[in-house]
Amino acid sequence: MSVTLIILAAGQGTRMNSDLPKVLHRLGGAPLLAHAMAAGAALAPERVIVVTGHGGEAVGRAALAVEPEAVVVEQAEQLGTAHAVAQALPALAGASGDALVLYGDTPLIRAETLEAMAEARARHAVVVLGFEAATPGRYGRLVTEGESLQRIVEFKDASTEERAITLCNSGVLCAEASVLADLVRAVGNDNAAGEYYLTDVVELARARGLSAGVVICPEAETMGVNTRTELAAAEAAFQARARAEALEMGVTLTAPETVFFALDTFVGRDAVIGPNVVFGPGVTIESGAEIRAFCHLEGCHVSRGATVGPFARLRPGAELAEDTHVGNFVEIKNAILDEGVKVGHLTYLGDTHVGARSNIGAGTITCNYDGVFKHRTEIGADTFIGSDTMLVAPVKVGDGAMTATGSVITSDVPAGAMAVARARQEVKPGFATRFFQRLRARKAERKETT
Amino acid sequence: MSVTLIILAAGQGTRMNSDLPKVLHRLGGAPLLAHAMAAGAALAPERVIVVTGHGGEAVGRAALAVEPEAVVVEQAEQLGTAHAVAQALPALAGASGDALVLYGDTPLIRAETLEAMAEARARHAVVVLGFEAATPGRYGRLVTEGESLQRIVEFKDASTEERAITLCNSGVLCAEASVLADLVRAVGNDNAAGEYYLTDVVELARARGLSAGVVICPEAETMGVNTRTELAAAEAAFQARARAEALEMGVTLTAPETVFFALDTFVGRDAVIGPNVVFGPGVTIESGAEIRAFCHLEGCHVSRGATVGPFARLRPGAELAEDTHVGNFVEIKNAILDEGVKVGHLTYLGDTHVGARSNIGAGTITCNYDGVFKHRTEIGADTFIGSDTMLVAPVKVGDGAMTATGSVITSDVPAGAMAVARARQEVKPGFATRFFQRLRARKAERKETT
Amino acid sequence: MSVTLIILAAGQGTRMNSDLPKVLHRLGGAPLLAHAMAAGAALAPERVIVVTGHGGEAVGRAALAVEPEAVVVEQAEQLGTAHAVAQALPALAGASGDALVLYGDTPLIRAETLEAMAEARARHAVVVLGFEAATPGRYGRLVTEGESLQRIVEFKDASTEERAITLCNSGVLCAEASVLADLVRAVGNDNAAGEYYLTDVVELARARGLSAGVVICPEAETMGVNTRTELAAAEAAFQARARAEALEMGVTLTAPETVFFALDTFVGRDAVIGPNVVFGPGVTIESGAEIRAFCHLEGCHVSRGATVGPFARLRPGAELAEDTHVGNFVEIKNAILDEGVKVGHLTYLGDTHVGARSNIGAGTITCNYDGVFKHRTEIGADTFIGSDTMLVAPVKVGDGAMTATGSVITSDVPAGAMAVARARQEVKPGFATRFFQRLRARKAERKETT
Repeated sequence: MSVTLIILAAGQGTRMNSDLPKVLHRLGGAPLLAHAMAAGAALAPERVIVVTGHGGEAVGRAALAVEPEAVVVEQAEQLGTAHAVAQALPALAGASGDALVLYGDTPLIRAETLEAMAEARARHAVVVLGFEAATPGRYGRLVTEGESLQRIVEFKDASTEERAITLCNSGVLCAEASVLADLVRAVGNDNAAGEYYLTDVVELARARGLSAGVVICPEAETMGVNTRTELAAAEAAFQARARAEALEMGVTLTAPETVFFALDTFVGRDAVIGPNVVFGPGVTIESGAEIRAFCHLEGCHVSRGATVGPFARLRPGAELAEDTHVGNFVEIKNAILDEGVKVGHLTYLGDTHVGARSNIGAGTITCNYDGVFKHRTEIGADTFIGSDTMLVAPVKVGDGAMTATGSVITSDVPAGAMAVARARQEVKPGFATRFFQRLRARKAERKETT
Repeated sequence: MSVTLIILAAGQGTRMNSDLPKVLHRLGGAPLLAHAMAAGAALAPERVIVVTGHGGEAVGRAALAVEPEAVVVEQAEQLGTAHAVAQALPALAGASGDALVLYGDTPLIRAETLEAMAEARARHAVVVLGFEAATPGRYGRLVTEGESLQRIVEFKDASTEERAITLCNSGVLCAEASVLADLVRAVGNDNAAGEYYLTDVVELARARGLSAGVVICPEAETMGVNTRTELAAAEAAFQARARAEALEMGVTLTAPETVFFALDTFVGRDAVIGPNVVFGPGVTIESGAEIRAFCHLEGCHVSRGATVGPFARLRPGAELAEDTHVGNFVEIKNAILDEGVKVGHLTYLGDTHVGARSNIGAGTITCNYDGVFKHRTEIGADTFIGSDTMLVAPVKVGDGAMTATGSVITSDVPAGAMAVARARQEVKPGFATRFFQRLRARKAERKETT
Repeated sequence: MSVTLIILAAGQGTRMNSDLPKVLHRLGGAPLLAHAMAAGAALAPERVIVVTGHGGEAVGRAALAVEPEAVVVEQAEQLGTAHAVAQALPALAGASGDALVLYGDTPLIRAETLEAMAEARARHAVVVLGFEAATPGRYGRLVTEGESLQRIVEFKDASTEERAITLCNSGVLCAEASVLADLVRAVGNDNAAGEYYLTDVVELARARGLSAGVVICPEAETMGVNTRTELAAAEAAFQARARAEALEMGVTLTAPETVFFALDTFVGRDAVIGPNVVFGPGVTIESGAEIRAFCHLEGCHVSRGATVGPFARLRPGAELAEDTHVGNFVEIKNAILDEGVKVGHLTYLGDTHVGARSNIGAGTITCNYDGVFKHRTEIGADTFIGSDTMLVAPVKVGDGAMTATGSVITSDVPAGAMAVARARQEVKPGFATRFFQRLRARKAERKETT
């Protein structure tokens, strides 16, 4: 059965105390919004509709960055959840199959849970996602008979018996697209707040003789983010889940509590991740690679047998082939290191390709920026780049070539050649002794005069 | 009502197992002593008197570093808390208003709590700070009738009923200065330990017909530090409080549990602080600045729109104007970066001023130390400092000037000029091939002979 | 009484989901196996026998790395714990004194516990290590009368009353070597699994009129590692213990929860360890040294008064004498720094000796690798190595000598001399202005054409 996602992302998030729209705050390196979209993506949706409001333009851009085919619709006024879904109806028109309503500020929901909802649709016209609340408080209660949902009662309207129910409403809801559209159009706003509540569709459905059902998920999945403290708690929950999954997959995490994953981090079996490693978006670490302590990685690929760090930074476009080594205080950006390349210490490689087995000396820098343009550096295989070599791009170093320590390389170096660009060493006997005598005398003088 | 703080800081802290006097151990980057002084400072005290004993000289210096007008008095022998306060009486003489007794090893007390005590003085001659203890153990108990304090009972003297009381004595106490002086002089040492207990002033006050009252604060605020384990617990409590306050203020903390604040850290709304950031004393981060993962900052100022790190170190005197960028493996010390300056990689800037929009290439170093003296480097606006430029201070680079990659700059560079100090590149064809053939042959030989 | 350790290390550890044999997974920087061996080493064992199975060769090598005199025996098939011990009997033959059976995957057992077992042997022929289980679950139960052990009952054979017992079997067991050998030979495999269970020796011993006793330890010590999640929990327990011990010893840990110790880390009293410090194997930090935030240390020695970091890496063979300083983005490998040496910033020193009071400028690199061989650099006392000096090894710098900033030093520098190897600075007036005008014009052109 095909499905259309309707993601509500219009809330202002006043309690975040921020100029940034709430759903653009980040969790695991990605906007909150992207998490709900990623969970829904597991259903291979036919369409994705994102309803924006506060900060709508920025939210829309973020949605399109995740899913370029998403339809972004605006909810100009915030008149309730059913009103928000109503804005999506034109974009929903003609959709076959189901519509699933998700929330941009509920990032921890799992794909498996949504799949269970899709499946429950075989038995019920409307499926609502519920959770057993540890402290039900003022949540809406789900009145059920077995899997069958009788109605959703708002806390303030609930009887004492109904308030004793601990099964609560997450707000996530699924129905056939055309059915949902009909029901949403029928929702009124005849209540104290004058808002259109999406929960009303359950009662409306049953009044029409349609059945409603409940799928239950752990409370943690339904956690909404309304304050920065809740965001921090959601981040902790996200990281705890990611760490547990990595351990389960056979990843070695020396100190799991100090490793920060992004939404899309992939780490292979028997890879070793040391303490204090931060993964930004877009990282793949293959089986058997090792990332040592204090590394920061984003948008990069580390192959089997490669070792990285400690204190290394891999930026977007860093591609490390098998058995490469990137050591301490090294930054790699938009650079491909072929098999067996070693970059041990204090180096910046940017906009570069390094051929297999080359050794990049400590202190090497690719000077890829001339103040206006960026240029590329091409280094061949089996080269030996001496320490403190400056490679002034655009420049090429041929296979098997070497550069002398401390050289500024401004012209191409042919294969097998050596390039030198440095002055000859001169020694001035006794100079240092006299120099420091003079300086110390001056220091002594200054002390006397002051 | 004006107030004088009397801070008791004479304890040896034997259980710390340290040569450092207890109150000089650090919490949030500042000596324990400074925390009590900072809480008290919120009352805008007329005088601050610090009573020192063990390690008195060092403790006195630390106190004066926090409050240069503090009066440091010595308690040569440690004969009890009332005896300690008695040493402060000469310095208290003539003080108008109240005297408030605080403890150098009780760092978590909040300014709000002290303000509540000052206010309660309107109703009581002596005000004692109490707390509801989760495990009252051997704490002194506060026998009360409503807010009125009847007496303080030491645990060993308490009846079974009194031991059931959970309201305990923190030791913090406030009274009119002259009243406190009179009461303290009347305290005797006719007890098992032969010590002068400050708690006795309550009974003495009531015997004179003066009323005593209690202000209650959370137990956590009264936490004393006697061992390193307690110090670590206090640090954790301090950090938890600082992190919660930052979130409340609208700061984005990706992973709050990995950020370490100092007592005086200021971070503005919508600033973003990544994981693993350590703030030493004296840091201000403006709204909307971003500090990425793995940064270490002290004594610095980061303006709106600036981005720092990952892996950056800002040392005292680093001033980053708006929209500056300090990248990885960069150290900035006593240096002003004007608006829009970029310092991306592997650089040390010390004792420097960099004009607006200048770009500092990777590997740049200000050589500010000649072995005896430190010197300044002045870099103009709109300059382009090539990678691996050594700026041998004192030296000036004029507006719009550039330096060639790999140059050692020892003389001033005029505005708009380029300075070059490097050798021309020579290429030796085939040299690398022959060189490595020779080396590898030698290696093979060595293996044969061994 | 002398003792022989029998360490069972044959398990596959399927649930680790790893190609690495279970006992080679690391805890506190050392293989699990090494932890059991270290605890046993406190008894100064006469012999150490390690029984290997899965991944036997690698496990054997690891065992010999810890204890070169260990005897490694193979258990080709895994037929139960008594069968494993049976493989050790030939190597045990002729051993005087006791035999103690430990497990390679039970790393948290303490030396003190093993000492208590050795002592209990004076009263019992067989001594079993038990623990009070919080959740006894399916553990074997110890049926006791006082310290006397009646029998060990497997959960599945236990009566309801026996299942109510919370004193459980750790599997660790001690007996006279020859007695253990006799008992183990008598163990049969007439049970559902067809395995030889070591626990049977208790019943066999009592049938022969020998007494059995129990020593009880905290449950945490008996924690076995079967999954990566359990490994992470064991690491957390190990670190918690190491941190608590360090605090107890008088070490200052600003944020203990962020410091990672290795099995053999030694830190002296009043040493200060900042947040986010990772100790690999083989580190000694003397009293009063300071390791600042974000440091990574292994195989090194830091003396009294030395300061390291933040962002420093000390690798094996780094020896820092008193009052040395190693600053940010500095890597030291196999290098001795004599008293008072300063290495402040962005430096790599490898295979080097630096004499007392020398100052190593920022950006200095010892070029110790020529592509095939490694060479040494010798730096004398009281030298001044200018910033960005490349020391092309093998090379010597004499006492009191200096190198000019940006020099590549390829020949020895005599004492008191200065070595310079750099080009003279030239200034090209107006060049920068014209250069950037041209570049910007080209940029503007490109925009027009696209």
